[in-house]
Amino acid sequence: MENNAKEEKSYVIGLDMGGTNSVFGIVDSRGTIKSQTVISTKAYPDINDYVKAAVEALQPALDMVGGIENVRGMGIGAPNGNYYTGNIEYAANLAWPGIVPIAKLFEEALGIPCRVTNDANAAAMGEMTYGVARGMKNFIMITLGTGVGSGIVCDGKIVYGSDGFAGELGHFVVDHTPEGRQCGCGRKGCLECYTSATGVARTAREILSKRTEPSKLRDLDPEKITSYDVYCAAEEGDEIAKEIFEFTGYLLGRSCADFCTFNTPEAFVFFGGLTKAGDWIMDPIRRGYDENVLHIFRGKAKLLVSSLKGSEAAVLGASALGWE
Amino acid sequence: MENNAKEEKSYVIGLDMGGTNSVFGIVDSRGTIKSQTVISTKAYPDINDYVKAAVEALQPALDMVGGIENVRGMGIGAPNGNYYTGNIEYAANLAWPGIVPIAKLFEEALGIPCRVTNDANAAAMGEMTYGVARGMKNFIMITLGTGVGSGIVCDGKIVYGSDGFAGELGHFVVDHTPEGRQCGCGRKGCLECYTSATGVARTAREILSKRTEPSKLRDLDPEKITSYDVYCAAEEGDEIAKEIFEFTGYLLGRSCADFCTFNTPEAFVFFGGLTKAGDWIMDPIRRGYDENVLHIFRGKAKLLVSSLKGSEAAVLGASALGWE
Repeated sequence: MENNAKEEKSYVIGLDMGGTNSVFGIVDSRGTIKSQTVISTKAYPDINDYVKAAVEALQPALDMVGGIENVRGMGIGAPNGNYYTGNIEYAANLAWPGIVPIAKLFEEALGIPCRVTNDANAAAMGEMTYGVARGMKNFIMITLGTGVGSGIVCDGKIVYGSDGFAGELGHFVVDHTPEGRQCGCGRKGCLECYTSATGVARTAREILSKRTEPSKLRDLDPEKITSYDVYCAAEEGDEIAKEIFEFTGYLLGRSCADFCTFNTPEAFVFFGGLTKAGDWIMDPIRRGYDENVLHIFRGKAKLLVSSLKGSEAAVLGASALGWE
Repeated sequence: MENNAKEEKSYVIGLDMGGTNSVFGIVDSRGTIKSQTVISTKAYPDINDYVKAAVEALQPALDMVGGIENVRGMGIGAPNGNYYTGNIEYAANLAWPGIVPIAKLFEEALGIPCRVTNDANAAAMGEMTYGVARGMKNFIMITLGTGVGSGIVCDGKIVYGSDGFAGELGHFVVDHTPEGRQCGCGRKGCLECYTSATGVARTAREILSKRTEPSKLRDLDPEKITSYDVYCAAEEGDEIAKEIFEFTGYLLGRSCADFCTFNTPEAFVFFGGLTKAGDWIMDPIRRGYDENVLHIFRGKAKLLVSSLKGSEAAVLGASALGWE
């Protein structure tokens, strides 16, 4: 046990809530995760059972830091988490229907203040507090996972908008033609249909079916191709795979050039599985950005990859809300 | 003379600086313009002469309110006005080249604090302080004049971004194809090429040249058609004129639907000459918005026309900065 148990309120709890698992971290003011605890999210169809299980699972870790009285607050990053209401609202991939007053439930169970936001905003908080966006007042976080999320920071604060759901750049429509790809949101042509991991797989299937050049990707079941397969093929010099990243990155960079007109960010910070493709994706992002940005904004924004480890970033991001 | 000369710092000065004229207003805390003074902007190729002339012209109005000691500050809305630096930077339609430290010059000449921003941000300040956006914390102002400007308000504050030039939605690219219209910014397909007054005239010329239906607009020199001509023709039932507004409004509404993803505004406030076309433009804006907005944002944002009189709005908006 560490010797700072007597310092008051030296820790925060961060919760990264996913559809499958919930990761709790106890974090100190320097952003060190002192301990992590995982429980299943989907094992608890009743939210009250979930909160009870979470508090029980957290107890040994809390004892390690001298008890809950040394914890200033809790931050939760959750799908459809609403900062204003403290609720999770109609999250499609969680077991709890409708509106879940998650902040209130944890406040009652733990006796500490609790804040909620969505996962992309939590990631932005993490970058601003502990990552590559430290010290920045204006930046845009873009998370590239199964979908595309975003967290927008203006003047040092997350933009929550009028309803707590602002910063949905993944649903910015980049193709308004009838050929725009069908999105899960019910509309067509949203950015996330193209630049998410699933978007990359769709692009792969599209290019492979329309064209005849050889490609290592043709050895795979088209319905099962992943962005990781495309990455591996690109690494082996596969031209089609490179073209898929070129298309994806250029479109994303061009979109960021458009997003610049909102808040002229100091940086775009990219996070998530797709960034592991390295320069295969980052080079075309840079080109798409440089070739399309308004002249007065040229060279002003950095295009950065998150410096936080994937497994820690979400917990750290959520925990940053606990200091508020 | 009014009887409140003894109240300290009861007034602010607002300056609406255009390429041709500069309008100064002395404004009280209720947003009443007590007096207006106009000088020529372009008559002074030397900025020092301009400031000197302005101060001289303002003197009688200042005497009316008990002198400069009753004025809390000055706000300036100017092309390329930068809130952070207090400078006008490389304004194409002003006589002064390069960087003009306009705030500093007026602070020295008048002895009161002075703030600068661009005209669209000043309009947003005006709406927030005195107009239809009073009490709103999140809204987007869209000015539809020769160009398209915007002022974005998040959490009660204008978004200035990292460089003071944020909120350039007129240069959001809405047509990324090679057919996108050439913009004055050097790129193609910017929103302002379509939804400004000049954009409407371009659309008129394009439709008239491509099509053969009769139209009152064919009686005019195509190079001289204005958005007002199109409005008059629409009022007389001209189908081509109605189609021009339909195209313009729908594209603008659709773009606003996309802009929603940024800060989920409570309202979009439209200002400028084009709004005088009334429902000819507002109906398709509403349709374009409703048909394209992300479902979770549906029905949340109002689509409003500025309630401030055109001649007063810019001065009031600029003056609002004087209270800061």
